[in-house]
Amino acid sequence: MREDSNEFLVTPWEVRGKVDYARLVAEFGLTPLNQELYKRLTELAGGTHKLLRRRIFFAHRDLDWILDKYEQGEKFYLYTGRGPSGHTHLGHMVPWFLTKWLQDRFDVKLYFQMTDDEKFLFKPELTLEKTRRYALDNALDVIALGFNQDKTRIFLDTDYIGVLYKIALGCAKKITFSTVRATFGFTESSNIGQIFFTSIQAAPAFIESFISEKNVPCLIPLAVDQDPHFRVARDIAPKLGFYKPAIFHSKFLPSLSGAGKMSSSEAMSAIFTTDSPDAVRKKIWNAFTGGRPTIAEQKEKGGNPSICPVFYYYAFIFEEDDGALEERRLRCMSGDLLCGECKEELIGRIVEFLEEHQHKRERARDLLDKFLLKDEETF
Amino acid sequence: MREDSNEFLVTPWEVRGKVDYARLVAEFGLTPLNQELYKRLTELAGGTHKLLRRRIFFAHRDLDWILDKYEQGEKFYLYTGRGPSGHTHLGHMVPWFLTKWLQDRFDVKLYFQMTDDEKFLFKPELTLEKTRRYALDNALDVIALGFNQDKTRIFLDTDYIGVLYKIALGCAKKITFSTVRATFGFTESSNIGQIFFTSIQAAPAFIESFISEKNVPCLIPLAVDQDPHFRVARDIAPKLGFYKPAIFHSKFLPSLSGAGKMSSSEAMSAIFTTDSPDAVRKKIWNAFTGGRPTIAEQKEKGGNPSICPVFYYYAFIFEEDDGALEERRLRCMSGDLLCGECKEELIGRIVEFLEEHQHKRERARDLLDKFLLKDEETF
Repeated sequence: MREDSNEFLVTPWEVRGKVDYARLVAEFGLTPLNQELYKRLTELAGGTHKLLRRRIFFAHRDLDWILDKYEQGEKFYLYTGRGPSGHTHLGHMVPWFLTKWLQDRFDVKLYFQMTDDEKFLFKPELTLEKTRRYALDNALDVIALGFNQDKTRIFLDTDYIGVLYKIALGCAKKITFSTVRATFGFTESSNIGQIFFTSIQAAPAFIESFISEKNVPCLIPLAVDQDPHFRVARDIAPKLGFYKPAIFHSKFLPSLSGAGKMSSSEAMSAIFTTDSPDAVRKKIWNAFTGGRPTIAEQKEKGGNPSICPVFYYYAFIFEEDDGALEERRLRCMSGDLLCGECKEELIGRIVEFLEEHQHKRERARDLLDKFLLKDEETF
Repeated sequence: MREDSNEFLVTPWEVRGKVDYARLVAEFGLTPLNQELYKRLTELAGGTHKLLRRRIFFAHRDLDWILDKYEQGEKFYLYTGRGPSGHTHLGHMVPWFLTKWLQDRFDVKLYFQMTDDEKFLFKPELTLEKTRRYALDNALDVIALGFNQDKTRIFLDTDYIGVLYKIALGCAKKITFSTVRATFGFTESSNIGQIFFTSIQAAPAFIESFISEKNVPCLIPLAVDQDPHFRVARDIAPKLGFYKPAIFHSKFLPSLSGAGKMSSSEAMSAIFTTDSPDAVRKKIWNAFTGGRPTIAEQKEKGGNPSICPVFYYYAFIFEEDDGALEERRLRCMSGDLLCGECKEELIGRIVEFLEEHQHKRERARDLLDKFLLKDEETF
């Protein structure tokens, strides 16, 4: 989506402004997750998840078809990933939480792609050594979330290119410059690696079909900014004889500064998984909120949780209980709950989460080799 | 070079019309191989070669610099290749003959690239399975020429992408769409694999420097149509901290039909290494020549060897002796030598060459594994 009267911008490489998800649905041509499909998904899953109930996963392409296939005995596999341009922050993990839940509930394989090549190509200052280091570091966060060791493989594009390249070539042959120019806004000064890259991101959407030589459905949970890659991949799939991958779109955990999504490059806008308790405290205390300029005004008029990153942190990650979340929302709006109290409580929950996560993260170092896919390996 | 008043066209993917090499030198910005450099090269090599004496290798970029480096004790390596879109014909082998001579004389390594990815991307009808089959078949011809087994490695891009990709990414990051559009004439409807491809062709020009982490000079003998790839590679080399590859350009063995270079896709225009004696006989008898319409006219006015593919077959491959070649030229021009006799003699020489070559080609099957470079291997 191009920028429009400075409102907002959503591309795979940049998200700016306050995102209007209803407009994204219309302009990207997504299907909202309606009550009927939500119900069917949670029934088949044998349970629900707060990211679904709260429609943080809010839209999809062909999720209904994935469930049709599943009911017909054709198991899907999951594919998601990360562009390793820095340390992992909590926003990156939102799609991963649901991906893990889907894996556990449907007992399916997951390919996790680290696009170290992409970040090298798109960030002038990054070397391949740096993006590799970030990728291996980010992989610890993936493993720490507890993905099924037998059914999950993580790969760096530059490590797994031996398998990816042939699939990517098949994709690339069907994608014109005209298409990527229109989809991603490339120009005469875009580098030729950037232009080619979408075929590398498309490849894992077809990998199980390519390897097993029969069509296997693929479901891709992702943050909605990555959708353009898979619009292209879905367009070419029939030409290659593959199923179109299904997509499940999440919203962005907002920046602590109040607008857009969090960014690896603005340390204060996000909580990183490696942050110390002091750093968490400082960032949350400095965060933008939906509160009023003075306590008196807040008590009188109430706050606005719908624009408040602190509230979204609870909604996306740190409040499991729907009733408690709703109570928090109402107490904020009524002026009963002040920002200081709300922030203090969030700091406690984040610090508790990170303490546990950082512990698992360290243990993940020993598991890294088991999770990483290299050379010509399959699983 | 773009087409101009229908005269001729030379691009990495198409050569049409009668090639004006003097104009190519001017328009590509090549340096002609002059007497001084020829002398220096053959002195350092301790011998000469008909492809040099006859200026079939006619131009270069930085060949003098390669010799400077060589004299200073910095050994170069050789890199050449083949786009495997069909069987090998004699025209393909012209640069290989000189490459082998250079390897033997200077005792240097050779990387031989099979661009199975390129041919897949540029030929709508070719699959990766087919280009792989051609590549392995073409490799037999390379091996049959007797390249030094310890110092020569052949790789298919799709097999060796694990090493090539990282180098190609570094190249791609420095090459804009604008550059490849201007160099190769890409358009909105070019596929994104074609646009990226030149970075894969550039990679072996830097591979020894990349692997050894110090600059190693590279000399690329090639048919002049491949020069545009290395104009681009040379432009970006300093930005990557690498030496510019030096280039040594050969002319094309003309098509038997009389214009352009031979083509894998027109069977009658070329002698393939797998042709039977009968096929050779038929093709040479049907070949265009510089002869006159009637024997009487030929005897009276003489023939024109300068436009005659049969004469060029002698000059490029089948006549070692400069005196004998000159005698043939004069006898043709005087009307003393008729096309029938000249063709009959050529048929004999080709058949003799192919009989031997086909024998070596079969023996090469056992050596294939030793020559092929895969995965992360280096040598």
